[in-house]
Amino acid sequence: MYAIQPQQLLAQLNWRYATKQFDPTRKISPNDWAALEEALRLTPSSFGLQPWKFIVVTDPAVRAQLLPASWNQTQITDASHLVVLAAKTELGETEIDAYLQNSANASGIPFQALADYRKLIVGFAVHSLDPAARNAWTRNQTYIALGNLLTSAALLGIDACPMEGFDRAKYDEILGLKEKGYASAVVATLGYRQASDKYSTAPKVRFPKEDLFLEV
Amino acid sequence: MYAIQPQQLLAQLNWRYATKQFDPTRKISPNDWAALEEALRLTPSSFGLQPWKFIVVTDPAVRAQLLPASWNQTQITDASHLVVLAAKTELGETEIDAYLQNSANASGIPFQALADYRKLIVGFAVHSLDPAARNAWTRNQTYIALGNLLTSAALLGIDACPMEGFDRAKYDEILGLKEKGYASAVVATLGYRQASDKYSTAPKVRFPKEDLFLEV
Repeated sequence: MYAIQPQQLLAQLNWRYATKQFDPTRKISPNDWAALEEALRLTPSSFGLQPWKFIVVTDPAVRAQLLPASWNQTQITDASHLVVLAAKTELGETEIDAYLQNSANASGIPFQALADYRKLIVGFAVHSLDPAARNAWTRNQTYIALGNLLTSAALLGIDACPMEGFDRAKYDEILGLKEKGYASAVVATLGYRQASDKYSTAPKVRFPKEDLFLEV
Repeated sequence: MYAIQPQQLLAQLNWRYATKQFDPTRKISPNDWAALEEALRLTPSSFGLQPWKFIVVTDPAVRAQLLPASWNQTQITDASHLVVLAAKTELGETEIDAYLQNSANASGIPFQALADYRKLIVGFAVHSLDPAARNAWTRNQTYIALGNLLTSAALLGIDACPMEGFDRAKYDEILGLKEKGYASAVVATLGYRQASDKYSTAPKVRFPKEDLFLEV
């Protein structure tokens, strides 16, 4: 167990903020980035299906193309790393079987032993949801990954900015996502804040606890 | 800065799993629970709107009512704590003004100085989204809170199980959420695993990194 103390967790969650100005000269180290990718990979999802793809955009030319599709927010080009969290739009029996085969291999359980579980997943994801509801559901899952990523980055002392202000259709086109069976859901930019970013010292605004929590 | 090392983060993310059997005799300490509530409160959201309510269900009678609405999954009654993450369904100019007034108070900025920001938020959240799209959007935000909560709990060495397998309409009815302007989105149960939970020692199943990441 490598658990941490509550005050350490809260210190880092208070330290983080939606970074507006990244220092373009500071890069996340390969070791730290590998840890963040592994944290993303470990994100829990409904049924464990992991209905997502994480697109790490490192090519400066592609970043430059994404900029105008992102209201010209400079995080897109200045941040050390940019990840597009994309949700699976093709999720049928074939994809569920690929997942179950992977589970069977990892667990050393025969594929056939997962028949009941397969029935449950197919019944829900394929038969009970229409395509729009299925897309909404897989998109929800990508936001778990986003929440995990933001908290993981904060814990490592790495700045981040979650971004919804971008043109999803343009992103899908630039990144060729549609033909791969995915749709961009949300973006995270990561790196290190500029000292001059005035938002870094702005007070954190949240509703008071009594407005957000209800005890029953 | 109280940042932690990558191996500490990954050790805790590997330690966690979707707990099936909670030890009903072990309770999360008030100090740890207060930290998890504060972590939830600090969750980032689009525009900072925090379009959510966190319902902490402590009354055993209510937990017993929720059980049959949750496919009788015993986490509902056995876990130390149960939180229903609910998304705001009433989100119009009134609610946006309440948020901006809270921001103005916290920042010491006059409300009028936020006029442009107000225009941006109202233009997006009120005018560009129909009610169904708005609900999908606020629900997405609750999944950021879920991801943050699960990672925060893992860091503190507290077990959790995220749950989507419940009847949302029944939950809304039991908890009286509709008349409050919220809809249940997802559930988290938290506490400590039973030693006998066979899933606690099962290998963690994830797709290999090369299947989940795309570098562009």
